[in-house]
Amino acid sequence: MIERLTSHEIFVMFLALGVLLGAARLLGEVAQRFHQPAVLGEICAGVILGPTVLGTIAPNLTGFLFPEQGGIKLVLEGLITLAVVLFLLVAGMEVDLSTIWRQGRRAFSLSISGIAIPFAIGFVAAWFVPRLLGREPGADPLIFALFFATALSISALPVVAKTLMDLYLYRSDLGMIIMAAAIFDDLTGWIVFAIILGMMGTSSEHGFGIGHAILLTLVFAVLVLTLVRWLIHWVLPWIQAHATWPGGVLGFALSLALLSAAFTEFIGIHAIFGSFLVGVAIGDSSHLREKTRSTINEFISFIFAPLFFASIGLKVNFTAHFDWLLVIFVLGIACVGKVIGCGLGARWGGMAWREAWAVGFGMNARGSMEIILGLLALQYGVIGERMFVALVVMALVTSIISGPMMQRILNLRKPRRLTDYLTGKAFLNPLIANDRRGAIKELANALGASSNLNAEAVERQAWAEEEIMPTGLSNGIAVPHARIDRLNAPVVGVGLSRTGVDFDAADGEPAHIIFLILTPRDDDGAQQLGILADIAKTFENKETREKVLQVANYIEFLALLKIEMKDSLNIEPGEQIGISKSN
Amino acid sequence: MIERLTSHEIFVMFLALGVLLGAARLLGEVAQRFHQPAVLGEICAGVILGPTVLGTIAPNLTGFLFPEQGGIKLVLEGLITLAVVLFLLVAGMEVDLSTIWRQGRRAFSLSISGIAIPFAIGFVAAWFVPRLLGREPGADPLIFALFFATALSISALPVVAKTLMDLYLYRSDLGMIIMAAAIFDDLTGWIVFAIILGMMGTSSEHGFGIGHAILLTLVFAVLVLTLVRWLIHWVLPWIQAHATWPGGVLGFALSLALLSAAFTEFIGIHAIFGSFLVGVAIGDSSHLREKTRSTINEFISFIFAPLFFASIGLKVNFTAHFDWLLVIFVLGIACVGKVIGCGLGARWGGMAWREAWAVGFGMNARGSMEIILGLLALQYGVIGERMFVALVVMALVTSIISGPMMQRILNLRKPRRLTDYLTGKAFLNPLIANDRRGAIKELANALGASSNLNAEAVERQAWAEEEIMPTGLSNGIAVPHARIDRLNAPVVGVGLSRTGVDFDAADGEPAHIIFLILTPRDDDGAQQLGILADIAKTFENKETREKVLQVANYIEFLALLKIEMKDSLNIEPGEQIGISKSN
Repeated sequence: MIERLTSHEIFVMFLALGVLLGAARLLGEVAQRFHQPAVLGEICAGVILGPTVLGTIAPNLTGFLFPEQGGIKLVLEGLITLAVVLFLLVAGMEVDLSTIWRQGRRAFSLSISGIAIPFAIGFVAAWFVPRLLGREPGADPLIFALFFATALSISALPVVAKTLMDLYLYRSDLGMIIMAAAIFDDLTGWIVFAIILGMMGTSSEHGFGIGHAILLTLVFAVLVLTLVRWLIHWVLPWIQAHATWPGGVLGFALSLALLSAAFTEFIGIHAIFGSFLVGVAIGDSSHLREKTRSTINEFISFIFAPLFFASIGLKVNFTAHFDWLLVIFVLGIACVGKVIGCGLGARWGGMAWREAWAVGFGMNARGSMEIILGLLALQYGVIGERMFVALVVMALVTSIISGPMMQRILNLRKPRRLTDYLTGKAFLNPLIANDRRGAIKELANALGASSNLNAEAVERQAWAEEEIMPTGLSNGIAVPHARIDRLNAPVVGVGLSRTGVDFDAADGEPAHIIFLILTPRDDDGAQQLGILADIAKTFENKETREKVLQVANYIEFLALLKIEMKDSLNIEPGEQIGISKSN
Repeated sequence: MIERLTSHEIFVMFLALGVLLGAARLLGEVAQRFHQPAVLGEICAGVILGPTVLGTIAPNLTGFLFPEQGGIKLVLEGLITLAVVLFLLVAGMEVDLSTIWRQGRRAFSLSISGIAIPFAIGFVAAWFVPRLLGREPGADPLIFALFFATALSISALPVVAKTLMDLYLYRSDLGMIIMAAAIFDDLTGWIVFAIILGMMGTSSEHGFGIGHAILLTLVFAVLVLTLVRWLIHWVLPWIQAHATWPGGVLGFALSLALLSAAFTEFIGIHAIFGSFLVGVAIGDSSHLREKTRSTINEFISFIFAPLFFASIGLKVNFTAHFDWLLVIFVLGIACVGKVIGCGLGARWGGMAWREAWAVGFGMNARGSMEIILGLLALQYGVIGERMFVALVVMALVTSIISGPMMQRILNLRKPRRLTDYLTGKAFLNPLIANDRRGAIKELANALGASSNLNAEAVERQAWAEEEIMPTGLSNGIAVPHARIDRLNAPVVGVGLSRTGVDFDAADGEPAHIIFLILTPRDDDGAQQLGILADIAKTFENKETREKVLQVANYIEFLALLKIEMKDSLNIEPGEQIGISKSN
């Protein structure tokens, strides 16, 4: 264990991992708070910790945490590579093959156009204005043009997948079209890149010719998606029956993914394709239990993925080699080529213009792939450092704008939930009153103070509605409500009553959990109904109702509610917002 | 990402990880099949893949997969170190502080005696017969004696924890005493080792004196277990309320563990103590949800832990430097010292003799710790390779016998469950009969054939009992049964009826899932009741009953049953067999 790594290196490794993971998760949460995809915050964490920000303020600290060479560097690299491979396993598990088949034609025209147009634009630009694009004096013009064209053509599969997941679009039809096209584009891109490397005489390290590598990749992909997929479906029940659970399936899925990653790396295509293919094959089996799926998904999405995305930001100093003109030029060509190419492709495939542009921006995201490509090109002397920085900035900016642009174009909004309307100031624990009128008054006062409303008017209104129809639900829950003038959005007050308040419920039980729901006067009832549905669903479970009465404060109440709401509604990425519903 | 690691190295890394994980999980399952702890199979996987077996048959292959130097070596080492640190986080999360406090006195006398006696025996042996123990000619006699004494004194915290988990003893009182004592022993052992290194003038790399390191460790441990524990308890609801779930808590727990691991490594105590302490502090909070706990637990226990334990077997060639005499001598001294020391300590602490010996063998497990210690001693020239191999063999053998010896001494048996009595030959899908008598006859014939019984007698007996009291439970389940002469253990036949068979159930529903339960004549009813309870619990859930009727074959049926039984009974390590119940 410590035969080679010194104690100091182990110390730095854990420190670096802890800081990177903590910062990535933290900024990922912050990004989501501002309705941005988590991946943006995660990349920013790397930019802040890396040479660009921290490296400029305190170069010694960055050099200490993330050294440029030596054992720690290698170990972190290995871990990050493992992280992206595992992330692609999860991304693969989420792919629904039947959807992709259904989208076949659209995905095909999308990916062809999504490669051809940016490739053509990139090639022409690099061929005719090479100096503007920073071609090194000694570089071969054809290779440089091919490289630049390729760099513009491929999408970043992991970034595209993460952005779609963050927007809850991954499992939607639109998401699957984009994924299908991105997989195809990426495979093509890597094959073209293999050809370029072949032209430079470096080729695959394992001595496969280009033709061989392409053939092997296709045969392997077909094999995994047919025979291996069928074998997995057949062997999963056997593992579940005879091995410990869920250990058997977890071990099986991960070792298979690792071996497949090894194989694709071996034939000269990147390791991530192997784990992605295995993920698709495993995720497709109806024998994979939801619990196993979520264990793999959660651990990898929340631990490995943030580490990988943060590491992208660590790779380069964005100020030292920054050339405004070049950056803008590269970024412009990249966006125009990809968005137009994909947009037109999607349009030709029969999509509405709005969806087509959303697809264009979705596929526009580069990221890890571009950066890997750029690094190789830099090492082989095809591009210089200025161009490398421009490529990385282009990759980051396209990744960053991808989510927000799709969100804007498709006019996506997260549906608001009960928890969005609560406030700690209108959380009464314990509620003191022991009759209906008193309870409503107490809650109206609290809401009046927290939301700047006339408490008396609120009380009067709620009581009037209560008298028409009592609001005690069964199981000790009551939901008095009122429509209020000059209210922009609903607000909800909560009171927990130990003794119980009689709200005239059908089952005769006194209410222990009382919600006062205020909705705007002009609400058509949809908001109120949504809130009521949330309450009914969340408190269906007896255990939940008991737990709620034991909370010590508002934070604990909110924590409990969020978890129970998620559990009770069983929301998964891609289900919360169906693209078909939102336009 | 590939700035330093070549494509070939990435390929080998994934291949090595995939093979290691696959083999470890496979042999771990095989070991459990033979009622051995999984850790035994996992270590064996490493021995087989490592220099000892594969390295002898095909040295190139082992050298290729697990090279002795270079990038791959470093990356695998880093990953394995991360794996053991994460495993200790899980082990820490399982510790119940209140139990440890309750066991305080017993754990204290146990750990004192468990260190002092083997230390004394080891020191005397190394001092008076150094050549027999393979002291190198140039080595300092005092340092050698101190080292050998220390090597005999410490237990292997991860191995002890895994063995206890495998035996479902981890959360029991006995398990917690052993863990408390093992933690104390390990801490003491590392401190003594730090003193030895200090005497050799190597000391901590970060320049802490021995006194400082000890003081810092104690202060840090106390801080984490008091202030930090309290802060975690306070901040968890806040994270659950404001961050994504379960991503917020997962990221928080893991980054904290990594940072704490970095700190303990920094002050000169091994990284695993840091994550272990954080695990204890987090696991102790009642705000940590069962779901988060199980996501962390499952992913780490079934992925990282097997990787770590398999890697132990990779470390050395057990045949090349094997010296029978030395191995037996070291093993003998080690076992006698530790078992007697701990056994007496436990006895003095007030345990029964049987428990005391079980504790002795439980604490006797060495493993990773010994091997790390041995490696350091080898590097500094304190011991030679023969001695190193003897130490590793001693570590492995004591680890391997630890579980089985405890199992034997405590007479532990896994409670048998419904699934243990089923057989594919008595699984009728679909059941053809549509009346009670016919259904019983069909199942009796199947069981008669599979278990070598007189089918007619079985049918007669079951029908006689059925006539006295119909066995239709509610919800479409029926459980006809019979006691049979000359039957050694229960057997259960299952028939799935699409049309349903009227078994005169209270709710009037026809039975779709019919179990014919045969128990030995001399059973006092406990076995039959146990099986009935399992059936009732497992099929409580409507969804489960529907899923069962959709299975295609016996394997799928068994898989479903195993998972549902686990879910419905919510079995966790340490709960399945309480030590207090078994003696």
